[in-house]
Amino acid sequence: MKSMNKKIPKNIIIDVDGVLSTGQFFYNQDGKVFKIFGRHDNDGLKIVKNFFSILFITADIKGFKISKKRIVDDMGFELRLISESKRYEYIKNKYGLDNTIYIGDGIYDSILLKKCKIGLCPADARIEAKKNSNKVLKSRAGEGAILDASLLIMKKFYKKELDKIFKI
Amino acid sequence: MKSMNKKIPKNIIIDVDGVLSTGQFFYNQDGKVFKIFGRHDNDGLKIVKNFFSILFITADIKGFKISKKRIVDDMGFELRLISESKRYEYIKNKYGLDNTIYIGDGIYDSILLKKCKIGLCPADARIEAKKNSNKVLKSRAGEGAILDASLLIMKKFYKKELDKIFKI
Amino acid sequence: MKSMNKKIPKNIIIDVDGVLSTGQFFYNQDGKVFKIFGRHDNDGLKIVKNFFSILFITADIKGFKISKKRIVDDMGFELRLISESKRYEYIKNKYGLDNTIYIGDGIYDSILLKKCKIGLCPADARIEAKKNSNKVLKSRAGEGAILDASLLIMKKFYKKELDKIFKI
Amino acid sequence: MKSMNKKIPKNIIIDVDGVLSTGQFFYNQDGKVFKIFGRHDNDGLKIVKNFFSILFITADIKGFKISKKRIVDDMGFELRLISESKRYEYIKNKYGLDNTIYIGDGIYDSILLKKCKIGLCPADARIEAKKNSNKVLKSRAGEGAILDASLLIMKKFYKKELDKIFKI
Repeated sequence: MKSMNKKIPKNIIIDVDGVLSTGQFFYNQDGKVFKIFGRHDNDGLKIVKNFFSILFITADIKGFKISKKRIVDDMGFELRLISESKRYEYIKNKYGLDNTIYIGDGIYDSILLKKCKIGLCPADARIEAKKNSNKVLKSRAGEGAILDASLLIMKKFYKKELDKIFKI
Repeated sequence: MKSMNKKIPKNIIIDVDGVLSTGQFFYNQDGKVFKIFGRHDNDGLKIVKNFFSILFITADIKGFKISKKRIVDDMGFELRLISESKRYEYIKNKYGLDNTIYIGDGIYDSILLKKCKIGLCPADARIEAKKNSNKVLKSRAGEGAILDASLLIMKKFYKKELDKIFKI
Repeated sequence: MKSMNKKIPKNIIIDVDGVLSTGQFFYNQDGKVFKIFGRHDNDGLKIVKNFFSILFITADIKGFKISKKRIVDDMGFELRLISESKRYEYIKNKYGLDNTIYIGDGIYDSILLKKCKIGLCPADARIEAKKNSNKVLKSRAGEGAILDASLLIMKKFYKKELDKIFKI
Repeated sequence: MKSMNKKIPKNIIIDVDGVLSTGQFFYNQDGKVFKIFGRHDNDGLKIVKNFFSILFITADIKGFKISKKRIVDDMGFELRLISESKRYEYIKNKYGLDNTIYIGDGIYDSILLKKCKIGLCPADARIEAKKNSNKVLKSRAGEGAILDASLLIMKKFYKKELDKIFKI
């Protein structure tokens, strides 16, 4: 799994709630029923998926089927359920911190944002996540943060390829 | 389809998600179920429809029936499904760029915003759309951007007619 | 219906969408299904209803049952369906402009906001409504604008009575 | 119930709507159907519950089952229905004002925010609540206000224990 090219990480790992979704949980009397996703992020993911391995992770068991519908069924990416307490060891051992770009928003994402090769968070992330990120993205969660991240990553590692896509 | 009067474009073509709707996709475990539309935009569309040909376009297949309900059934306008990759050629060939006012918000709307006679985008459009628009509207998507656009267009091309409507 | 006391209007007439509700229309493929109301406004209405006659008006036919559920069934106020074009004459003839405090947010509310005894609008009202109001309320629609209005009206006309309620 | 240690209050009592939830009531034609809760607050509650007794209170009868689903069933805390008019006496007699940290957002929460040992409110609380709170939290309701409060309370009373949790 380790990249041959030491300078370019191979994996983009993305926390779901508060990054791809707005992080709002809609409840009725039977439980969690809706999440909000945005219109811009898939535009970015369609670009970076040609250059990086993309993985979504979530600790939300009760909302897992909702996230799965959007991410796996409608967008075609992989989604895994990994609790926040096991997330650091999991990514370290399975993907390598130095080989991973991590995008998260919560207080427990701070360590991964700090230790991974690149840590990015949406504009409305927790202050603790912002302090440990390499860059705070311009857009809020569910409003284009992942498109922001995609463009930023492409500009850093594959600028020529990005320019070809937007040659206008 | 080309206007006889070279100075007044005949068509207003409007992207749906992130322009008329807020661009938020509400998901439950069965898929995309809701979109949010605003209370002000129809007030503007009722005015411009008497002076321009109005067309809504969308690339959102999974949410098409929701958009159709609002735009076709409830507001009485035309809506067509046109993918982002085909949008530029479609409008160029069928309507004429110089004969079209385009309102969009996304990164792939940039070329149309730049090349059409007039390009307008909501206050919360992507930065790439803002840079290529003639004007960034004061209101956000779903909060009156289309009413803003309608008033702006009327003031530019049919000021006397607008003044008659708001003679207060 | 006219007030004996020329200085105190007897009626508070409130537009629903974008004033009591946030003005967001939630659509699924069958039509308009949800509106958002706030937690603060009823706190204000419970006070002013002891001093004024309260009436809610709406032009929203398709969402009427939703508004009715909140306003009539759950809060106990009167709600009438009155189109925007007939609103001015209706209020003028039935209630008297000088005897009415009007709260609205849209471009077609402007004339009533200007001509009624007092015109008030939420913080996120249309610019045209703001220009014609006596005061722009601090809170946005559905986030306390009607509580703001209630306190403002009580302070102006029944300050002693208000102080008794909040004697803390 | 009174704390032996006069300096550390034993109870954290939290109003639900506009504090843990965003305070938005989603209505369809059958009534109140959804509330929005956030992704961050439970991260804070899991910490403070080891040091304080946590109680949620609400005056919302029609939305009680929705709040109960989130707070009791999904998060494992206690929730009681207590009207705003009885809230002050209830807390005073049953818990002791000096032994309670109160978190609320509404105009009728003002007296408890003022009289309890510590009063805290979200960033989007009513101005009357803000004026009577010891501190206005950085986050809005449903966007992390309770995590903010949890960290603030831990820093004040159990700083060493908090540092152990975030020893990164």
